[in-house]
Amino acid sequence: MTTSDRTATAANSTGSPTSITRADCEQRDANDPLRACREEFLLPKGTIYLDGNSLGPRTKGSAERAQEVITDEWGTGLIGSWNTAGWWDLPAKLGEKVSGIVGGGAGSTVVTDTTSINLFKAASAALKMQAEDSPDRRVLLTQRENFPSDIYMLQGLAEQLGDGYEVRLVDDEEVTAGFPTTMSDEVALVVLTHVNYRTGRLFDMGTTTSAIHSGGAMVIWDLCHSAGALPIDLAGTGADMAIGCTYKFLNGGPGSPAFIWVAEALQNRFSQPLSGWWSHAQPFDMAPDYRPAEGIRRYLTGTQGILSMSVAELGLDIHSRSDMEQVREKSLALSDLFIDLVDERLADHPVEVVTPREHAHRGSQVSIRHPEGFAVMSALFERGIIGDYREPEVLRFGLTPLYIGFTEVWDTVEALRDILDNRLWDTPAHKVRGAVT
Amino acid sequence: MTTSDRTATAANSTGSPTSITRADCEQRDANDPLRACREEFLLPKGTIYLDGNSLGPRTKGSAERAQEVITDEWGTGLIGSWNTAGWWDLPAKLGEKVSGIVGGGAGSTVVTDTTSINLFKAASAALKMQAEDSPDRRVLLTQRENFPSDIYMLQGLAEQLGDGYEVRLVDDEEVTAGFPTTMSDEVALVVLTHVNYRTGRLFDMGTTTSAIHSGGAMVIWDLCHSAGALPIDLAGTGADMAIGCTYKFLNGGPGSPAFIWVAEALQNRFSQPLSGWWSHAQPFDMAPDYRPAEGIRRYLTGTQGILSMSVAELGLDIHSRSDMEQVREKSLALSDLFIDLVDERLADHPVEVVTPREHAHRGSQVSIRHPEGFAVMSALFERGIIGDYREPEVLRFGLTPLYIGFTEVWDTVEALRDILDNRLWDTPAHKVRGAVT
Repeated sequence: MTTSDRTATAANSTGSPTSITRADCEQRDANDPLRACREEFLLPKGTIYLDGNSLGPRTKGSAERAQEVITDEWGTGLIGSWNTAGWWDLPAKLGEKVSGIVGGGAGSTVVTDTTSINLFKAASAALKMQAEDSPDRRVLLTQRENFPSDIYMLQGLAEQLGDGYEVRLVDDEEVTAGFPTTMSDEVALVVLTHVNYRTGRLFDMGTTTSAIHSGGAMVIWDLCHSAGALPIDLAGTGADMAIGCTYKFLNGGPGSPAFIWVAEALQNRFSQPLSGWWSHAQPFDMAPDYRPAEGIRRYLTGTQGILSMSVAELGLDIHSRSDMEQVREKSLALSDLFIDLVDERLADHPVEVVTPREHAHRGSQVSIRHPEGFAVMSALFERGIIGDYREPEVLRFGLTPLYIGFTEVWDTVEALRDILDNRLWDTPAHKVRGAVT
Repeated sequence: MTTSDRTATAANSTGSPTSITRADCEQRDANDPLRACREEFLLPKGTIYLDGNSLGPRTKGSAERAQEVITDEWGTGLIGSWNTAGWWDLPAKLGEKVSGIVGGGAGSTVVTDTTSINLFKAASAALKMQAEDSPDRRVLLTQRENFPSDIYMLQGLAEQLGDGYEVRLVDDEEVTAGFPTTMSDEVALVVLTHVNYRTGRLFDMGTTTSAIHSGGAMVIWDLCHSAGALPIDLAGTGADMAIGCTYKFLNGGPGSPAFIWVAEALQNRFSQPLSGWWSHAQPFDMAPDYRPAEGIRRYLTGTQGILSMSVAELGLDIHSRSDMEQVREKSLALSDLFIDLVDERLADHPVEVVTPREHAHRGSQVSIRHPEGFAVMSALFERGIIGDYREPEVLRFGLTPLYIGFTEVWDTVEALRDILDNRLWDTPAHKVRGAVT
């Protein structure tokens, strides 16, 4: 209990870290105002699911919703359902719901395509704006530890544009310090993950956006690991654009479609190159000349997977009903507990807490490092505790306040203690790596 | 019975066109070797569904498959289903199935993203290859009557590339004549729909591809209106690339993901700019440098909608079990019948058959033109006969041999006759246009 953030949550704690018991955790669960939200999810019995930062669990009603879409909308409504079931409007309808969760304001968000593709659209449009205003700015900055797909997409775009466009990678510390060594009048665009997917480090959207704008660059925020996990005020912080997925903290279902947000003032300045018919001002005129729709609809491209989109709406609705401040408070309480228990109960082992201990720099996960991280995670799987593993040596535990409780955190660290104390990870079977972790 | 193609199908006819009766059609249905395929689809009673060229109907087992994905794979398997349920491999697995249907050969097709996005990938890669081999070729040709989204995507790409890249539109006649006036050493790429979505005109893939290659250009075929409708031999005709959707004749479900095929010899020559992590050689290394996978996997981008993808597989499986030569034979017999009946029974009305009468130039639909086409289609809807309407004045009727029979064609033209003879279309209600037709 030496850092200020731990003190800040002591009001919810039943004693000093050295005396935390499972009974204390049960008591905190009993008093948890979000406890009832767990009923919105259908989790398998006997599983502690700490991978909601990678894939949120099944939402209640999702099977029924899929039935309805297939039986009534597709089966009976057939082609007419593009109108009568509102299929055509789903990207905008779901976009409004996402916008409510991330503070985007009305008419500024659509749900469509994948995060990577939406980044390509946003970055292309941003670079066109800069080419108009500041043609010498041709550098794209992003975190070296941004999710690799973001980096690859920017590399693909820069290569396609040629003409001196290039991607430069920066360390997280450079971002938190306000780009003292990398910002220059060459920088057109900065693309930042709001939360480092591996370490769980949270970046301050407001001060970082201001630093980037002061340097004359634009910013795109990737909210994959923060949307639905913590309060976000996209419009209030003055961000330019944002993208993100709906299948992690927003519980949209496997591979559910992504979102894109563009600040209102920028929406009509340029169109993006993936200019398919869904982005046309009058798509059913079938005219041979492209004319972009006004507003955020110009960031659409083509026909969307209606089944995945329809089921994703249920996850968004759960979040729309939730108080994000309350979610954040419990998230920090859960991660404080996790870190305290690691400090206390795993002290004899070569375990390092990778996630920042300061609340202001922490997302909604705890990552720890152990030299045999992969085998340790395999041993946890065996007990029905599901986190995941990321190279090098990092065990990730997503803490999702809507369906994870304090007792589950206690049980997880206790399982880790048992596995480490008794070297239960040290079997050949626990070291076999699959194609996908 | 004046054209050669009608004579060619007379063997399946029970008499001269002037004596076709409903009983004749019933007899042809009774003798139809594809009749049993109808059981693979769940069509609403009382509906004649002639819009399978826009959205294929519900496949048998689709509701059950969605249940399984949601309950077992997502609900119970959770994040582990990326491996255990084979989610990660779905684009390649479904790609092989599509490839079997369009003659693409092994390892050359993936199912992913949307048709428009796949066109951007294919066209970007093709232009890169041409820039290397023939840097002065900067013109993209496509049909003026190609589906507009294809045109818009090419316009978006050309604008992004700048440097003299431009899109030129050509008439269908220019394509069938082998580009006598538009092919030149400026042309880099030709993008062609295999079947004109509005008129149903089919283009000869073999001779057209040869003409384009003779001119030094590359070709991308859009198979949206031919995949699953007729035999295609992509690899055999020497095509360079192809794209298409799975929700029309392939019955994948609303907005189900699209496919992209790249000739084996071209796959590793260049990577495409939408270079997300799914296209990386080692996606789970999470390395900051992009390195494209070998083969067709480099045309993937990001995480796919698993629910839409899983249900789409059922539609592909139906086609994998079908004999495409038999499908084509019945398709032509259905459209011959439709055209014969229009000629005979609607002769007193200003109705024009837009679809080519020659088999070699006909896809799997019949389009007719009437000055009050929209109101006429509305009157058909009222009777449970579902085709669709496209500006200007065109009524489209998709003829899908796996679930449409000869009697339904008879009933449709008879309904048209009644509506036209008695001006039943001429009501205010039939002229109200919705947002989406």
